[in-house]
Amino acid sequence: MTPALAIADVRLTPILVADPPLLNTQGVHQPYTPRLIIEVETAAGITGVGETYGDAKYLELARPLAARLVGRQVSDLNGLFTTVDEVAVDATRVSGRVDVGGLRGVQTADKLRLSVVSGFEVACLDALGKALGLPVHALLGGKVRDAVEYSAYLFYKWAGHPAGVASEKDDWGAALDPAGVVAQARTFAERYGFASFKLKGGVFPPEEEIAAIRALAEAFPGHPLRLDPNGAWSVETSLKVAAELADVLEYLEDPALGTPAMAEVAARTGVPLATNMCVTTFAEIQEAFTTGAVQVVLSDHHYWGGLRNTQQLAAVCRAFGVGISMHSNTHLGISLAAMTHVAATVPDLHHACDSHYPWQSEDVLTERLTFDGGRVAVPDAPGLGVELDRDRLEFLHRRWLDDDGALRDRDDAAAMRVADPEWVTPPVPRW
Amino acid sequence: MTPALAIADVRLTPILVADPPLLNTQGVHQPYTPRLIIEVETAAGITGVGETYGDAKYLELARPLAARLVGRQVSDLNGLFTTVDEVAVDATRVSGRVDVGGLRGVQTADKLRLSVVSGFEVACLDALGKALGLPVHALLGGKVRDAVEYSAYLFYKWAGHPAGVASEKDDWGAALDPAGVVAQARTFAERYGFASFKLKGGVFPPEEEIAAIRALAEAFPGHPLRLDPNGAWSVETSLKVAAELADVLEYLEDPALGTPAMAEVAARTGVPLATNMCVTTFAEIQEAFTTGAVQVVLSDHHYWGGLRNTQQLAAVCRAFGVGISMHSNTHLGISLAAMTHVAATVPDLHHACDSHYPWQSEDVLTERLTFDGGRVAVPDAPGLGVELDRDRLEFLHRRWLDDDGALRDRDDAAAMRVADPEWVTPPVPRW
Repeated sequence: MTPALAIADVRLTPILVADPPLLNTQGVHQPYTPRLIIEVETAAGITGVGETYGDAKYLELARPLAARLVGRQVSDLNGLFTTVDEVAVDATRVSGRVDVGGLRGVQTADKLRLSVVSGFEVACLDALGKALGLPVHALLGGKVRDAVEYSAYLFYKWAGHPAGVASEKDDWGAALDPAGVVAQARTFAERYGFASFKLKGGVFPPEEEIAAIRALAEAFPGHPLRLDPNGAWSVETSLKVAAELADVLEYLEDPALGTPAMAEVAARTGVPLATNMCVTTFAEIQEAFTTGAVQVVLSDHHYWGGLRNTQQLAAVCRAFGVGISMHSNTHLGISLAAMTHVAATVPDLHHACDSHYPWQSEDVLTERLTFDGGRVAVPDAPGLGVELDRDRLEFLHRRWLDDDGALRDRDDAAAMRVADPEWVTPPVPRW
Repeated sequence: MTPALAIADVRLTPILVADPPLLNTQGVHQPYTPRLIIEVETAAGITGVGETYGDAKYLELARPLAARLVGRQVSDLNGLFTTVDEVAVDATRVSGRVDVGGLRGVQTADKLRLSVVSGFEVACLDALGKALGLPVHALLGGKVRDAVEYSAYLFYKWAGHPAGVASEKDDWGAALDPAGVVAQARTFAERYGFASFKLKGGVFPPEEEIAAIRALAEAFPGHPLRLDPNGAWSVETSLKVAAELADVLEYLEDPALGTPAMAEVAARTGVPLATNMCVTTFAEIQEAFTTGAVQVVLSDHHYWGGLRNTQQLAAVCRAFGVGISMHSNTHLGISLAAMTHVAATVPDLHHACDSHYPWQSEDVLTERLTFDGGRVAVPDAPGLGVELDRDRLEFLHRRWLDDDGALRDRDDAAAMRVADPEWVTPPVPRW
């Protein structure tokens, strides 16, 4: 025991952050999305910050976990997993249904626990790094690169949320056809220097999305392009899209739902398949890797239980000749810093990582992280290298407190029903 | 950069340490075996220690690596791998032949480099832990147990090395038949409290070794037993032994040589197969795991490139439902401490680890590590929690300096030829 590293307090602050009307196969992003900000304070008064999903099912686990951590060491990262295992998961949270919000396959207690642990692990690493005077990447074995490349995350989107709905305005405009997608990509390239482009698909019939990718290929010849319909297609549709875009795709992401369908697609196309849906836990790796279902795993430290598990995932991928990159869901700067630290330590990172961060106009940091030439510089300051803006945190928490509960659980289908009351989550495969 | 953590000096001290006349399928242990002690000193004057193989082929790599590390950070563990890759490996060292001394399959430049890195990684972790006031296990995410269980490592052995050969005496006596093996096991149990027993086999015809295991099972009913012929058997012999000992074996270790042969054995027996020969690098995992060739991987941080790679190996095994335990070759207390720290952090360690340490009457520490109830307590002092005895180090280094070169490269077959001039390394399968 190192008394100074003992956890004296853990603070959980659920917030609602503005999210633009980004479309996906389930519906549309809510005007505000829940996130949970975790602060871990040591006996010596050093505070580390972490961030994870903020829906009720995560809060339910985070609160008892937080209580159990007081008195433990911030360095006891392995202990987070044994401690969270002591927290019971409500059976209604793991009904075996598809996790609509996260687009992450079947929900399990393990997945819920790991998503919660991830935020605590990052907060502990931040506190530990600050206490020791070391950046988080040094706690992970040291960076092997000084900057991490990200891709532009293109979305079909409306110009604004439905009329009459409380929301923040954005200056991106609508993107509902190939021209709109290309315009959005140009803005991404101009503002941030991104050189890779990913389009969130599964929104329009495949022919329209093929046309959008073709338009991107013409506008950005030679640049890596990706298309991700979130499992909305049948095997045959997946193969048709793969054949039509084989010459321009870096990879096709989750064209079909589930490992068997992905394996069938993979066996019949030369286009690499990436996933953040059929391989989201260690338990899902074996089937996918032995059937050749995926060629690139999109890691997400929120899914996998933190930064050290992300490194272990990368090691498993390396051993099986499977590529690695990074998935992103709506997140703030704390998580972008965490993603950047861990990505800096992964040797075989040959694909630009995804990040929603440019879509988030709000943050809880005193200073936003910036993209330069599509890259985020790896912070060398102690911990994550970010500083919490308590006024902003309080403001966004107030929004959460004031919400009547409608937005506290992200539900893209419900958000879509505001504009289209008849909307139901489409059956899969949709096309 | 944290100036205090910069490496100011790296000292390499090859030594020869006493080794009893332990028999294996290749021959017999030399009376003295080479080890390399690595000291990494920081700009702040903190020294970390590591230990690895000391044969010439390792020294050849360790020296240029040591030179390249001056000025780097002790926390830059990932950088060790990129740095060692800059060091050329002499082509004659990787001729594709079986690595006789290490019993570790085909020699490759990668395996040599990782074995060298392992000692430097441990030294850097020791120095880093001392500098930060944290035990090595805390740098690895924290211990999940307070003590690590080891198994008794039984060997067929002579009472002493051949007459006329310089050697140290040991008080274990001979063990050349079932009664001798049982007597040795009883001594192990009395002195150290070990509850698991592993017999190094491949020395006598399988019937004799089956009889030895049967005798152990009678003497220690219900205790986990293992037999390891180092790949000396054919598939058919392996299956015969497995059938005859199925009711008492915890696992059979490397009965046959190479992954295809192991897979054939595994497919036809219910006895779990363990290995430290066909899975010794990440590149060898895929074939073995997809063919079901092994049920337990015996990790060895010297083979795998250090403690963090050992954790990654454990993660790969966990993802594929393959068990993990720990292999050992002749080693001293520095490595036992390192093994104990990393083993303390591995969640699913369900088999006692191997260790040669009880066979090593000499060490370079001021205080030997001890086994209590077959367990080594996980040190909580900063770093590894061990202290170098410089007089002992100098004494053992002097022995290395005085050697004419005959013992500087471990060669169990050459050691056997001292007693039996006609001895040649037996062809595989031997039985």
